[in-house]
Amino acid sequence: VTVAADASPEPPPPGAQLLAEIREQPAALRRLLEHADGYAAVASAAAARGRTLVRMVGHGSSDNAASYGVYAFGLLPGWTAMRDSISLSVYYGAEVDLGGSIVLALSQSGETPDVLQYVERARAGGAFTVGLTNEPESSLAAAAEVTLPLAAGPELAVAATKTYTNQLAALALLAGCAAGRCDELVAAVRRTADLLEELLPDLEAQASELAVPLAFVGRMFVIGRGPEFATAREISLKLLETCRVAAEPLTATDLVHGPVAAIDAFFPVWTIASADESLPAVREAARRARDAGAVLIVSGTAAEEVPGEYHLPVPQPPLPLLTPLLSVAPGQLLAWSLAQARGLDPDRPSGLSKITLAR
Amino acid sequence: VTVAADASPEPPPPGAQLLAEIREQPAALRRLLEHADGYAAVASAAAARGRTLVRMVGHGSSDNAASYGVYAFGLLPGWTAMRDSISLSVYYGAEVDLGGSIVLALSQSGETPDVLQYVERARAGGAFTVGLTNEPESSLAAAAEVTLPLAAGPELAVAATKTYTNQLAALALLAGCAAGRCDELVAAVRRTADLLEELLPDLEAQASELAVPLAFVGRMFVIGRGPEFATAREISLKLLETCRVAAEPLTATDLVHGPVAAIDAFFPVWTIASADESLPAVREAARRARDAGAVLIVSGTAAEEVPGEYHLPVPQPPLPLLTPLLSVAPGQLLAWSLAQARGLDPDRPSGLSKITLAR
Repeated sequence: VTVAADASPEPPPPGAQLLAEIREQPAALRRLLEHADGYAAVASAAAARGRTLVRMVGHGSSDNAASYGVYAFGLLPGWTAMRDSISLSVYYGAEVDLGGSIVLALSQSGETPDVLQYVERARAGGAFTVGLTNEPESSLAAAAEVTLPLAAGPELAVAATKTYTNQLAALALLAGCAAGRCDELVAAVRRTADLLEELLPDLEAQASELAVPLAFVGRMFVIGRGPEFATAREISLKLLETCRVAAEPLTATDLVHGPVAAIDAFFPVWTIASADESLPAVREAARRARDAGAVLIVSGTAAEEVPGEYHLPVPQPPLPLLTPLLSVAPGQLLAWSLAQARGLDPDRPSGLSKITLAR
Repeated sequence: VTVAADASPEPPPPGAQLLAEIREQPAALRRLLEHADGYAAVASAAAARGRTLVRMVGHGSSDNAASYGVYAFGLLPGWTAMRDSISLSVYYGAEVDLGGSIVLALSQSGETPDVLQYVERARAGGAFTVGLTNEPESSLAAAAEVTLPLAAGPELAVAATKTYTNQLAALALLAGCAAGRCDELVAAVRRTADLLEELLPDLEAQASELAVPLAFVGRMFVIGRGPEFATAREISLKLLETCRVAAEPLTATDLVHGPVAAIDAFFPVWTIASADESLPAVREAARRARDAGAVLIVSGTAAEEVPGEYHLPVPQPPLPLLTPLLSVAPGQLLAWSLAQARGLDPDRPSGLSKITLAR
């Protein structure tokens, strides 16, 4: 038997990269924790300089993670954190004083052009600029005053998964250190990584089953509130980019402020229910959606407490603030299985590339 | 002929209230300008107290208007304005220092429960609280330190139109006064009201024609950037709540960061193109959507500069920042005409009431 010396390896089957990276998330979280000292040092420096206004910038999944950062900084050190407008400064040249702030620039590749421009501008204006990236040799690392590694490792699938969960953990860690609770957060993230590892195999099987009844879904609302609004945004984005579902994230309150009028039996509603202060509002929004005829998919730590057709519960982590590290997994896995049920390759969605250079 | 003494008046035909309120917008804007002195006084008080961090809170259309406020305050006085999280303080009890801020609470009715709770909390914490409402006798007016009238007049249709445009104008006026440009803004809004009045009759006819090819649309992206992202959000909400279209607002950049992969020939993209610094990014996003097979509806001041199937241009107002007062009108009118084409009553969408008391 002769084997051609230049035979290319078989390309991986559709979805193999995405699934491998979903499965790798517990290990990626543990890698991040090896850098906890760096996170503690940045939190101390920010506190020492009195930089308690946090401006987060990023696109796509990174911007979704920033939605979580609002709660991490608000609930742990009590700092005001905002998803800042990139275009206001970079395109429109607004002369906003960024000097008293800490800027957290979120970019997997560290090469997103307008994030870089924002950081350069903010740094020149006196902001304390911090790059959070998977690539310590990137342009972002060069542009920011300090770089914190995301340590998710190379991400090959176009749809981000392990980078997103590591961004959540990075923001929780930084916020926890700013609140003087570094060790507690490290332990809690480590325990959450263990819970995720135990959870994933069962979820894979459940998501594959759920892909069958949802095979022809064209549109969906994904509702969550508080820290879980980030999860609603991220699950929607995964379903949009890998499965072509017009999935729209809404807070529970925003749903009943208007969009509930669009619901019918062909408009399922994914509800992320957490066992926290938002549960009554989320339960009420789910009831309204069901009354309007929607099929309900319920995930989260309080999934069993909300009536619905399909349930994808996740366990309770040591800190309620860390539930989004677990509750995104059902959405990631449904995106993976639903894409395959539809004959789409979730590793390479049409029209996308891994690093978006568009401005 | 005997007429029963208790005969109720005929209910207005479906859409009559919404159309009347869309048409009333120029008059509503002029009513707002009668209160310019009050806006100037609040802007002076905020500046005198050094309150240059603006926290805006509201739901639905009010929150969409807040997206515009980010640009109005950023571009005119150079203040940082943010859509603050209501749930962070009100549900989760985060102890964020709101004391150094000015709070702008946006509520048509002045009765939105969690907006009221946020204002009470912020005022107790030392924030300068300002209520912007149509109802000067509302609970919000009682809870806030100062109330500024929106002066849109009674709004009967469930879907907000004239309240939204008056909220935009109110935020522009307050920001302009904060920049020492009160008179200029008053004149510019007045001129914009005139332009809107000239524009509406033609747009009504165009929207009615456009409802025919779009009659069966199930999903849509609406893209805009900078100040026009608020318009993208508001047009999406109108289409969702009155026409049951799964319309999702995206910035031009966010579209190419993932959701573009969902586009096909049955997924039209509404593009709001303004003759400003964002035009190259918007044009590029529109091109990518078209390459993916999307039908393009293009509105805005630069509509004619972006290739597409349908064009709904609006004129250029005296200040580029005021284009959203005009560019929302094509979306309002399409929602009105498309609802009728679908046999829906846009005045009374199913499952909604005018004042949302949900939390």
